[in-house]
Amino acid sequence: MKNGILNYIITLIRTSDIRMSKITIKTLAEQSGFSIATVSKALKDSYEISAETKKKVLDLAERLNYIPNPYASSLRKQKSKTIAVILPEVSDNFFSLAINGIQTVASAKNYHVLIYLSHESFEIEKETLSHCSSGRVDGVLISVSNETKDTSHLEKLKKENIPIVFFDRDLENFLAPKVITNDYECGESAARHLIANGCKNPVFLSTSETLSICKKRYAGFISFLAQKGLPERERIYIVNNNSGSEYIASQIQDILEQNPDIDGIVASVEKLAIHTYLFCLNRKIHIPENLKIIAFSTLETASILNPSLTTISQPAFDIGKNAAEVLFSMIEKKKHIVRDEFTLVLPSLLIERSSTQNKME
Amino acid sequence: MKNGILNYIITLIRTSDIRMSKITIKTLAEQSGFSIATVSKALKDSYEISAETKKKVLDLAERLNYIPNPYASSLRKQKSKTIAVILPEVSDNFFSLAINGIQTVASAKNYHVLIYLSHESFEIEKETLSHCSSGRVDGVLISVSNETKDTSHLEKLKKENIPIVFFDRDLENFLAPKVITNDYECGESAARHLIANGCKNPVFLSTSETLSICKKRYAGFISFLAQKGLPERERIYIVNNNSGSEYIASQIQDILEQNPDIDGIVASVEKLAIHTYLFCLNRKIHIPENLKIIAFSTLETASILNPSLTTISQPAFDIGKNAAEVLFSMIEKKKHIVRDEFTLVLPSLLIERSSTQNKME
Repeated sequence: MKNGILNYIITLIRTSDIRMSKITIKTLAEQSGFSIATVSKALKDSYEISAETKKKVLDLAERLNYIPNPYASSLRKQKSKTIAVILPEVSDNFFSLAINGIQTVASAKNYHVLIYLSHESFEIEKETLSHCSSGRVDGVLISVSNETKDTSHLEKLKKENIPIVFFDRDLENFLAPKVITNDYECGESAARHLIANGCKNPVFLSTSETLSICKKRYAGFISFLAQKGLPERERIYIVNNNSGSEYIASQIQDILEQNPDIDGIVASVEKLAIHTYLFCLNRKIHIPENLKIIAFSTLETASILNPSLTTISQPAFDIGKNAAEVLFSMIEKKKHIVRDEFTLVLPSLLIERSSTQNKME
Repeated sequence: MKNGILNYIITLIRTSDIRMSKITIKTLAEQSGFSIATVSKALKDSYEISAETKKKVLDLAERLNYIPNPYASSLRKQKSKTIAVILPEVSDNFFSLAINGIQTVASAKNYHVLIYLSHESFEIEKETLSHCSSGRVDGVLISVSNETKDTSHLEKLKKENIPIVFFDRDLENFLAPKVITNDYECGESAARHLIANGCKNPVFLSTSETLSICKKRYAGFISFLAQKGLPERERIYIVNNNSGSEYIASQIQDILEQNPDIDGIVASVEKLAIHTYLFCLNRKIHIPENLKIIAFSTLETASILNPSLTTISQPAFDIGKNAAEVLFSMIEKKKHIVRDEFTLVLPSLLIERSSTQNKME
């Protein structure tokens, strides 16, 4: 008999457990008359909700024995104190320096920085962004891959209210704050510099037809050449840099062997300049006498290369640092400071060295 | 009266809720007679536990209405499918290449790779490891910071059964599998090479007195010199590389200005070689005539530097790849393959170039 009552009570407990476990925020909203948003904020003890409303919601929650989804709640309640940095690679010195700039800001805020590499793959970038959702990070800094055109992976994150800031490589069809450099002007300067130093047939080596920075750099380059009335010819060569050093080398070899008239190169990234140097060393082609080279690069060894390399040096550290500052102002909800249209342009610097010298002068 | 009964039952439910919520794995272990580990594994449906034991544990859990800690459980149940790579910096090409090796293995396993930089700071490294606990990652690959001596942060992770593998930079006082290179032999080879090419007064530039790789490289270097009976003098200089390029440059300047008798340098990391080159360029000191340089480095530009740089090139990609493979065999519990004592040594290669050439020959 004793057992019978106990079983009855246990059954009762079980039943009510099951029922109780189904009490959701929606139930609380229905029964309290408040909106789902209000109930949710009240449960999170938001400053936006009055003490009176909070008390009503919490009393109801207690009465109905509302059990929050603890995983989601624990993630939502406490910030992750983590930001993600998504970038294509770290072997380019630009990104190493940008990471240092980002980390300076994050450290001061006591934030962790997770670095994810897309290896220039849209698929990896997409996968990575999905890994950043559900409260794992409080914000995302991204420099998109060569392949990225679609924006759905970013839209998804935006819907979760995770702030996103572009640095260096942005997307034209997705609105988010960006910190970039003056790529178009630098493309013009590079062309002007090569022509001024005697080049008759300069070309642009790019890693992508679609990437914002490559497009702008090339647009500036070709616009300057157009003014000069140079003969019609192919002025841009796309080098696939997603498949390792050997493949880059073989593509550069093909371009330069098949086009012996090329006497000047603008390399859109430093790796293309390095492989052009290696090809010239191998074939005993003299830089700058036979071929002049200028590269978008922050290479630490630029001045000790043989010959020293003329560069357009981006303010990589400052781009990272400013992008992180914008992101934190979004995380901290200083919404009046940053709009999605916000664009900060930090200018790059042309540093003239031996690789573009006019030996005829 | 009706209300009275209802209140009584509700009180009963509440009380038993509280009691039930305190049912832990320990309670289940005590009441079932199994060990905590067995109960835990049974609840996780581990293949290590017999069906019979599982049934007993699950029946008891149900009877006592055991509620698992859902946050921990959800994290434990489903693997995070993420590994962490902790390393001091990415501006050294060694680490870029090692990351690529790691990522190759991780991608094939459909794992995410989180990269954390310690910036050669023990404090950041410790903080980072604490960020890796509680199921956030399934395993950790680490190359420790310059400053790391204490092992408590690694011990803590080990207690959580998160597998750890060292790559390149290990700790002597913490037992974990490691994938390294033959640093001692390479230190010897570097000294032998400089002496053979005419150096009378070679020194070793290091970034740390305590770091395993620096110690071994120097030990090999000094042991070879001792056999040659060179005069007694300071043979090692420690350069602090935690505080940016300018500070590295000023330290190298001090060393070379105060010791004009130095005619050969072994640089323990590539950054020290780059700054030595920059100093020599600035002061018009000729390499290799006045100063010979050999560097532990996988620098892509080594062969196009002025002059080309003699290197001891580590198999960086393979070190990363093999370390990741060892880590995954631990994550997948192929415990018979890897023990904590496991050490894989992948040899480096001395590549002779112009920076150590004997121009007197």
